[in-house]
Amino acid sequence: MRADGRAADELREVRITPDWINTAEGSALVEFGNTRVLCAASLTEGVPRWLKGQGRGWVTAEYAMLPRATDSRSTRESVKGKQGGRTHEISRLIGRSLRAVIDMDKLGENTLVLDCDVLQADGGTRTASITGAYVALAKAIDKGRSTGLIPAAHQPLIDSVAAVSVGIIDGEPLLDLPYVEDSRAETDMNVVMTGSGKFIEVQGTAEGAPFDRDELGKLLDLAGHGCTELTRIQSEVLAG
Amino acid sequence: MRADGRAADELREVRITPDWINTAEGSALVEFGNTRVLCAASLTEGVPRWLKGQGRGWVTAEYAMLPRATDSRSTRESVKGKQGGRTHEISRLIGRSLRAVIDMDKLGENTLVLDCDVLQADGGTRTASITGAYVALAKAIDKGRSTGLIPAAHQPLIDSVAAVSVGIIDGEPLLDLPYVEDSRAETDMNVVMTGSGKFIEVQGTAEGAPFDRDELGKLLDLAGHGCTELTRIQSEVLAG
Amino acid sequence: MRADGRAADELREVRITPDWINTAEGSALVEFGNTRVLCAASLTEGVPRWLKGQGRGWVTAEYAMLPRATDSRSTRESVKGKQGGRTHEISRLIGRSLRAVIDMDKLGENTLVLDCDVLQADGGTRTASITGAYVALAKAIDKGRSTGLIPAAHQPLIDSVAAVSVGIIDGEPLLDLPYVEDSRAETDMNVVMTGSGKFIEVQGTAEGAPFDRDELGKLLDLAGHGCTELTRIQSEVLAG
Amino acid sequence: MRADGRAADELREVRITPDWINTAEGSALVEFGNTRVLCAASLTEGVPRWLKGQGRGWVTAEYAMLPRATDSRSTRESVKGKQGGRTHEISRLIGRSLRAVIDMDKLGENTLVLDCDVLQADGGTRTASITGAYVALAKAIDKGRSTGLIPAAHQPLIDSVAAVSVGIIDGEPLLDLPYVEDSRAETDMNVVMTGSGKFIEVQGTAEGAPFDRDELGKLLDLAGHGCTELTRIQSEVLAG
Amino acid sequence: MRADGRAADELREVRITPDWINTAEGSALVEFGNTRVLCAASLTEGVPRWLKGQGRGWVTAEYAMLPRATDSRSTRESVKGKQGGRTHEISRLIGRSLRAVIDMDKLGENTLVLDCDVLQADGGTRTASITGAYVALAKAIDKGRSTGLIPAAHQPLIDSVAAVSVGIIDGEPLLDLPYVEDSRAETDMNVVMTGSGKFIEVQGTAEGAPFDRDELGKLLDLAGHGCTELTRIQSEVLAG
Amino acid sequence: MRADGRAADELREVRITPDWINTAEGSALVEFGNTRVLCAASLTEGVPRWLKGQGRGWVTAEYAMLPRATDSRSTRESVKGKQGGRTHEISRLIGRSLRAVIDMDKLGENTLVLDCDVLQADGGTRTASITGAYVALAKAIDKGRSTGLIPAAHQPLIDSVAAVSVGIIDGEPLLDLPYVEDSRAETDMNVVMTGSGKFIEVQGTAEGAPFDRDELGKLLDLAGHGCTELTRIQSEVLAG
Repeated sequence: MRADGRAADELREVRITPDWINTAEGSALVEFGNTRVLCAASLTEGVPRWLKGQGRGWVTAEYAMLPRATDSRSTRESVKGKQGGRTHEISRLIGRSLRAVIDMDKLGENTLVLDCDVLQADGGTRTASITGAYVALAKAIDKGRSTGLIPAAHQPLIDSVAAVSVGIIDGEPLLDLPYVEDSRAETDMNVVMTGSGKFIEVQGTAEGAPFDRDELGKLLDLAGHGCTELTRIQSEVLAG
Repeated sequence: MRADGRAADELREVRITPDWINTAEGSALVEFGNTRVLCAASLTEGVPRWLKGQGRGWVTAEYAMLPRATDSRSTRESVKGKQGGRTHEISRLIGRSLRAVIDMDKLGENTLVLDCDVLQADGGTRTASITGAYVALAKAIDKGRSTGLIPAAHQPLIDSVAAVSVGIIDGEPLLDLPYVEDSRAETDMNVVMTGSGKFIEVQGTAEGAPFDRDELGKLLDLAGHGCTELTRIQSEVLAG
Repeated sequence: MRADGRAADELREVRITPDWINTAEGSALVEFGNTRVLCAASLTEGVPRWLKGQGRGWVTAEYAMLPRATDSRSTRESVKGKQGGRTHEISRLIGRSLRAVIDMDKLGENTLVLDCDVLQADGGTRTASITGAYVALAKAIDKGRSTGLIPAAHQPLIDSVAAVSVGIIDGEPLLDLPYVEDSRAETDMNVVMTGSGKFIEVQGTAEGAPFDRDELGKLLDLAGHGCTELTRIQSEVLAG
Repeated sequence: MRADGRAADELREVRITPDWINTAEGSALVEFGNTRVLCAASLTEGVPRWLKGQGRGWVTAEYAMLPRATDSRSTRESVKGKQGGRTHEISRLIGRSLRAVIDMDKLGENTLVLDCDVLQADGGTRTASITGAYVALAKAIDKGRSTGLIPAAHQPLIDSVAAVSVGIIDGEPLLDLPYVEDSRAETDMNVVMTGSGKFIEVQGTAEGAPFDRDELGKLLDLAGHGCTELTRIQSEVLAG
Repeated sequence: MRADGRAADELREVRITPDWINTAEGSALVEFGNTRVLCAASLTEGVPRWLKGQGRGWVTAEYAMLPRATDSRSTRESVKGKQGGRTHEISRLIGRSLRAVIDMDKLGENTLVLDCDVLQADGGTRTASITGAYVALAKAIDKGRSTGLIPAAHQPLIDSVAAVSVGIIDGEPLLDLPYVEDSRAETDMNVVMTGSGKFIEVQGTAEGAPFDRDELGKLLDLAGHGCTELTRIQSEVLAG
Repeated sequence: MRADGRAADELREVRITPDWINTAEGSALVEFGNTRVLCAASLTEGVPRWLKGQGRGWVTAEYAMLPRATDSRSTRESVKGKQGGRTHEISRLIGRSLRAVIDMDKLGENTLVLDCDVLQADGGTRTASITGAYVALAKAIDKGRSTGLIPAAHQPLIDSVAAVSVGIIDGEPLLDLPYVEDSRAETDMNVVMTGSGKFIEVQGTAEGAPFDRDELGKLLDLAGHGCTELTRIQSEVLAG
């Protein structure tokens, strides 16, 4: 049994509170255990210059951590004057993941920006961000279709998306790692899946020892199981 | 009567939730109506190089807004590569305000950093930040005294601090302005006061028309009234 | 009596030399004792993008210190790659102060930029900057009305503006603090007033101990006295 | 058959020229078809501050592209004043990949920095970089063991590492994609493997359409085949 | 005799390989002994905003060093977040030198950017860059005239340009200094000349001791001799 | 005759006011006609890390222009977040020029920083800066020898240094070009000389047309004449 009493294939308690702020077109506070991320979706008319005139939309994302989201304070990136490599990498991952479930033609020449700000971090912040950002995104698209920015007859969402981390610790594959497990994992994998069960991203990294095909397979099974559960929660939240 | 139904000398609904995150030594989520700020106090051993060896502590603050705290999204300062003038100005104000109620000798060679991150903005973010940061600070000092980082016999807190905005609209002095009032104010004033009723900061600005001594007096009366009420709320929250 | 032999309510020797450089539309070298600031006003056609087409003008300011304006050399902000919080804060104060005496409709779609560069610093650099910038501004407006950039029938200046610092040292309120006094002040206040005697900005800060309503009143009296004198000097200089 | 006449499971012509520059402790010019990357390994005494005193070494990497490595010129990151997200992401990937084959205890308190500068880009620059960086690294370690910086009795290299890209185009899995194929791929995967055939990194991304378990399996087979061949070439080059 | 066996007025072995990369409109790998610089010329339609509508072209240059071009690794300027003074100075020198042999009217509203990236440095990198950049530039102009971007009837090249360093060591004037000589030189001079034998730039610097008119004359003689030889090599390379 | 009535070999009116500010160890306001530069010399104990323990001193310089030194306002480099190439180039030139007349062993482990800030620009700002910086430097060294930071028995100054610009306009060599001439010059040369008549820097640039050996000779003659006169003025000013 794990330190927090979970089974190997069990998610932490997951809560998604939609509309946690009302300034954005869509928003959600997502919690995977103690990991807490505020996701805001901004929907605005127009697209970046290089996309103009093609009738297609754009989706992008920015991820950040508050300085005291972690047990020891980190310096603000605005004070350092630049974003770090980890921030860039996760922002890009979130953007790609959400773009995979959007039909850009149906979105029309509109832009969706997903801001995922980690308020408290306990492992799995990037997967919680993707899972919560989907809810904020769906809310913003609803709003856009009701205000007419997106024609009501168009549904740009072609599937849902959820993500979870998996890893191998002491030779055992585990689902949804909190920080204390993540820091000890030999192999760490983040898996992003559609609601229909296909892969959008598979990012496996050997932190301690290289892994083989068999271990990879077990991790993918576990991730598939977790994403199915997350998809169910997203669906309930959106059904209201 | 005001748009939100309040009397001229009435605060918005104020809620302070202490320990909203558990990664920091002290924290509080403060709400002045729709304005919502997460305040985290970090207490660490040691002081900046220029203060070393004097047996005295240091207190500083950083203020920031999430990109979607406002009705239209603003670019992240980490993406721009620098903090703006408004951010700097408010961070400095918060730092000075909190330093005014700390006995640096009693704090010892320890540093307190207050992070005030605005999650949703509806006017008065700097005054809400100061008011909430005081609660986070008091919590962190309690923690420090219980862990021994600060000797239990020392109480570095010499007073409490609260802040509120006041302004003149259509010739009438009003307390605690939301954004819709703030943007129309002829004169705008932020007042920071100790729990014992003295001034730490008085910052009055003629946005529309210069003001006279009499108007200044009325605004200070109103602010005194608001800070008394905020001090009471802080005290209740800290009494637990 | 004070270290430099002045009475409590006496200004340092104030000199304003208009047209000290001839490259700008308006300029003035202002001296408050050893504090020496070069103020240049640039008047150009056009306004920032967000103001276009409204028939209104724009006024902004930038403050900076030469590296060796002070007794020990400070690193250039261009070398650090960013402006500090103090620079931002003072630039914003100067801009707000000057905007308060300009009728933007009369200015038309033109921009005034005030550059205040401190050549030698001995306390009160922000108040000297505002006082000198007004002279540079008035000169630039004269120039604009004579060249026709501003219609000669329009007078955008609706009042004059001057500023002075006041503070409490050893319990005594004093006018126009040089560095040696400023660094010891319990309370420090910068007051910006119109020539007609109203307040544009009141910024009081408790550096040592919180202050009460009575002390605030005495400081405002002293500041009013100082600004009246500065207004007289500005007026003489501009009368030529 | 592919545009360049290769079979689906065939690498482009791969050339690795060791010691292409003689200023670095180890270097290699690596070519995967028209993709040409200069890899330099710097071996220096000492480790970053946070690692000091533990008797362990450090390995890190930096990736960059010359402005005219591509068909249209890109702005230099030194001119923009910051590195982009893609640069950060690839630098981190190269660093992790090389660290996986180094025994940090055997390396001792020494640092290895791998610089991978793309001189000409035609797809697969990150995988070519990892493959070439391994040769530069091995050369630098040889040098360090011969000069005594690393004790001759210690061999920090525990395995070799090579990397290749694979992708699905028009439903068909292909090995080692040049730019013209990469830009059309539905799914794109970069795989980093040890010489002994285990995985260090698996990064699969659905660019066009989500992929399933079966497609993932075929891509991993193809990548395993390519890495085996690259390992053979590295081994020949290092055998001299 | 010199350490490398050359006579005082002898160049190092000079090799220029045109079209070393095929992504740019023109390119050349230039080697002066161990100094190796990749020069790429980008020819694009259009000019900077301030030049538009005048029917004239623009030529500019950027110089940089790879981090491991030198015996000890230097930090990347993209990591530092800014270009250093030396980089700026040399970029400007290369730009001015190339502009001197271009008829901007004949170039038409097109822009030529010369990128000179030092792959290995052993003294004389700026003079090698100018000499190689001329070849890349000539190639790019040929390309532009063949594609019609520049009318075939127009020849924007009005002369060729080459550059060499000279210096005084132990009182003796020497041609084309490698790093080991350059670092010991009392006086160091970089001379840029046209193929027709006139001066474009003369930059003489007393590193150790001031120099007189007679020494200046001897250095110019030596540089003239070296540039004549470089002009011959450029001409052969371009004749193909 | 020239537009300002001078002969071809005549300097503009040159004024050097020593001790123009009293915050620095040495200072001078230098004027070459309308060009006006404030030069401040900072003398402090200690040297940069890379020079420590060698018993030798260090001299460096920073040049900058106030935004309104010129007829049209330029953006502050602190606002842009970086120094431009021209600023870097001139700062480096001033530093090299001053270092050439200092005996670093006699200076001891002390640092001299020369700040040259252009208050008004009308051509020749870099040569005026060097000429004025020498006076500030000499003053600071006097101060250091009187306070004992530099042993009174040591005289680090081994010569004086002055600089002047020369150029060819309409085929005629002219001395000390104001902006109106400088912008029309075919060839522009800045010459830095010691008081004893030798060259420290010769920087000749063909702005319009390449120049020959004969023209170079005439320009050097003219510069020698100008520097002799500047040396006389410096000497008078320092004699007090």
